[in-house]
Amino acid sequence: MKASLAKGTRDFLPSEVKVRQHIFDTMRQVFELYDFVPIETPAIENLATLTGKYGEEGDQLLFKLLNNGDFLSKVDEKMLVDRDSKAILPFISKRGLRYDLTVPLARYVAMHRHELSFPFKRYQIQPVWRADRPQKGRYQEFYQCDVDVIGSDSLVSEAELVQIYDEVFTRLNIPVVIRLNHRDVLKGISEVVGASDRFVEFTVILDKMDKISAEQMDNALLALGMTTAQIQRMRSLLDTADIDDLKNELLASPAAQHGLDELSTIQQYLKQVTIKNAVEFDWTLARGLNYYTGTIFEVVCPQIHIGSIGGGGRYANLTEAFGFGGQSGVGISFGAARIYDVLIELGQMKNMDISSTQLMFMPMDDEPIIQCYRLADTLRKSGVPCTLYPEAAKLKKQMKYADDRQIPYVAIIGTEEMKSQTVTIKNMSTGDQHVIAQSEIVTYMKSLT
Amino acid sequence: MKASLAKGTRDFLPSEVKVRQHIFDTMRQVFELYDFVPIETPAIENLATLTGKYGEEGDQLLFKLLNNGDFLSKVDEKMLVDRDSKAILPFISKRGLRYDLTVPLARYVAMHRHELSFPFKRYQIQPVWRADRPQKGRYQEFYQCDVDVIGSDSLVSEAELVQIYDEVFTRLNIPVVIRLNHRDVLKGISEVVGASDRFVEFTVILDKMDKISAEQMDNALLALGMTTAQIQRMRSLLDTADIDDLKNELLASPAAQHGLDELSTIQQYLKQVTIKNAVEFDWTLARGLNYYTGTIFEVVCPQIHIGSIGGGGRYANLTEAFGFGGQSGVGISFGAARIYDVLIELGQMKNMDISSTQLMFMPMDDEPIIQCYRLADTLRKSGVPCTLYPEAAKLKKQMKYADDRQIPYVAIIGTEEMKSQTVTIKNMSTGDQHVIAQSEIVTYMKSLT
Repeated sequence: MKASLAKGTRDFLPSEVKVRQHIFDTMRQVFELYDFVPIETPAIENLATLTGKYGEEGDQLLFKLLNNGDFLSKVDEKMLVDRDSKAILPFISKRGLRYDLTVPLARYVAMHRHELSFPFKRYQIQPVWRADRPQKGRYQEFYQCDVDVIGSDSLVSEAELVQIYDEVFTRLNIPVVIRLNHRDVLKGISEVVGASDRFVEFTVILDKMDKISAEQMDNALLALGMTTAQIQRMRSLLDTADIDDLKNELLASPAAQHGLDELSTIQQYLKQVTIKNAVEFDWTLARGLNYYTGTIFEVVCPQIHIGSIGGGGRYANLTEAFGFGGQSGVGISFGAARIYDVLIELGQMKNMDISSTQLMFMPMDDEPIIQCYRLADTLRKSGVPCTLYPEAAKLKKQMKYADDRQIPYVAIIGTEEMKSQTVTIKNMSTGDQHVIAQSEIVTYMKSLT
Repeated sequence: MKASLAKGTRDFLPSEVKVRQHIFDTMRQVFELYDFVPIETPAIENLATLTGKYGEEGDQLLFKLLNNGDFLSKVDEKMLVDRDSKAILPFISKRGLRYDLTVPLARYVAMHRHELSFPFKRYQIQPVWRADRPQKGRYQEFYQCDVDVIGSDSLVSEAELVQIYDEVFTRLNIPVVIRLNHRDVLKGISEVVGASDRFVEFTVILDKMDKISAEQMDNALLALGMTTAQIQRMRSLLDTADIDDLKNELLASPAAQHGLDELSTIQQYLKQVTIKNAVEFDWTLARGLNYYTGTIFEVVCPQIHIGSIGGGGRYANLTEAFGFGGQSGVGISFGAARIYDVLIELGQMKNMDISSTQLMFMPMDDEPIIQCYRLADTLRKSGVPCTLYPEAAKLKKQMKYADDRQIPYVAIIGTEEMKSQTVTIKNMSTGDQHVIAQSEIVTYMKSLT
């Protein structure tokens, strides 16, 4: 049988896992610096928990698990004869795979509310599954990294989340722009330019502004029923960078006043600290607006055209669907797969070691193996990762192995070295060789690194 | 709707995730010290890859994913009318969830053979899924941690794997006994005591020796056709601790000679180094013998009666089923869930911090929030994890939060402190309070830890 991967999935080679571990470790350190604690939820959830939370399209993209055992035994005969897949589904599948980390968080908070302290600040880094049509760079299984604060209205959370974005991307050496908006500002603009009766469509068009031409944009807005004058007014509002200026322009909208006041408070907090990346207001930013009820976040790396590498916002009543109402939350996500791609494209990982192994022992005969074994242990005990080619293969074969594995040094032990209790150390990139006493190997290796 | 977990699954609270991260981080460090590199494989595999690899019972315990879309459209009418779940299965499900990490490793090595260097030393820490009947302490989703060497016959690997067990459990403060055996020794014993024609049944009985009484054991062996004399001979062989003594006893069996020579070589390697835990030969050890073809490993913690917390062995031709023959491998597993339980039972995690957060700022009014925000940032920039209660809630409420979260220090800022640019720091366990200048907070907190 020919080995093959399931459609839409992929393996990770060691170098890929190492880069991802670096990304996740960096995130964890920053999250914990800001007092977020980790949770994990199971991959398998009841379909009752998942269904209806992601729209009709989302329901279709859920992976469903077949009930175990004789799954057809209780299915209605007529449904079977009719081949009614949709009607049969609830009878043969009760569980599915996690589709995101937000719905499981809501279920978790509702279930564990008596064990948790609120505000509950959690982070979660786990894979999710979606039965999307596979295409280049898009997989059916991918990691999500979410950071949320549940149970507080305070805008301190928003400011801290901006800082977390800033700190994570600074540590990863990815220069980013962090964009902010507020649902109520979008609402205010739509009111003032006469598009409030078609608010959702309006924001969908706004969100596309950097992807389509000005003419395409005008046509879309005209089709929405807006006049040329209203469109012009809208463009002028979107160009107003300063919060106070925009407040003046949107005096007619109480919603906009509220949204801008909130953004102003966040700005006040951020002025207390040093932010290393650009933080900008972007009045076109909408991001799955139906979901967000307050601030909206997005992060892009302007040098790499890959779309957003992070996003989030405030949402009211996340846990209400699970019988636990009145808990406001705010959260951000990190797009792990795209962050990986950006790191590679920026060349930040070029000098990353595929493995931490510093040296490989090369026994030239069966006899030296035991000396190599002892020396490898000595090095490891002093904290130097190393390896031992496990058999006395030909020099060329062992050298090729060390080279392929990008191990920086090799230590050769043959009959000569055995007798004199020495070892020949070779630098694999320069070719330099030194013969040293075996008893000096720890000192020697430590002097090199 | 009431929030609920799917049958057989569980959530992990922050304190549980922290302990598990500690376990995995410890393992990773040791694995990399010994030159093992990490890989990851997808949760979803083709059923063709998984089916037939785990016996008939295993096939039934595989989680199967329902094909997406109109899954019934291509099913034969007769099968539907007959409600033949088994026959229909291949038509409505093509993929399933990973059942262990060994079969995915075999598929991975076969598929990526041209990208890998052999011997390929990999580790892998990922969850697996089994539709076992859920019971106390047994879940349908659990982590496996595997370490394998593929593509070498050398017994250096066996010795290094013993050292890895020794080092991981030493670092975790779990005293263990590492047991070794060899399939060919079991074979030799069965030959010499006249049980070789029922070898598998014989080893199954041996493996139970520490769980059943001597009388039960005798009865089982008699039922196998062994004589009382043979049973007596067997007991005397099993009691022979020394390899050379056993070699003399088993001179009649070439298989036993070979197995004991291999164990003797492993022993030679291990004599070169310091092993901190007990390493013992246990001639009853079998562990899923059908699978192993050479050395067999098992680890127990004698203080805690929970069964083995690790096991493994050598297997020939792991990758042959995927069209890549001739690769001998040897590997060990760590039972993550049981190791977690052992750590808790031994009380090793009692002093572990639930979170790394050192201090919580408590604003007594709206105004100090902004000062708290700035100070929290100053502390974080100097590497001290801290938090800020995000609103001016009542003192009692904030104190309870800090207490529940087990945060060791709180920093109170009210009107007085605002005016004098001071902060009142309280030690939550002793109740001691100190008023210090805000500008000194980093120095003060660093002096405490």
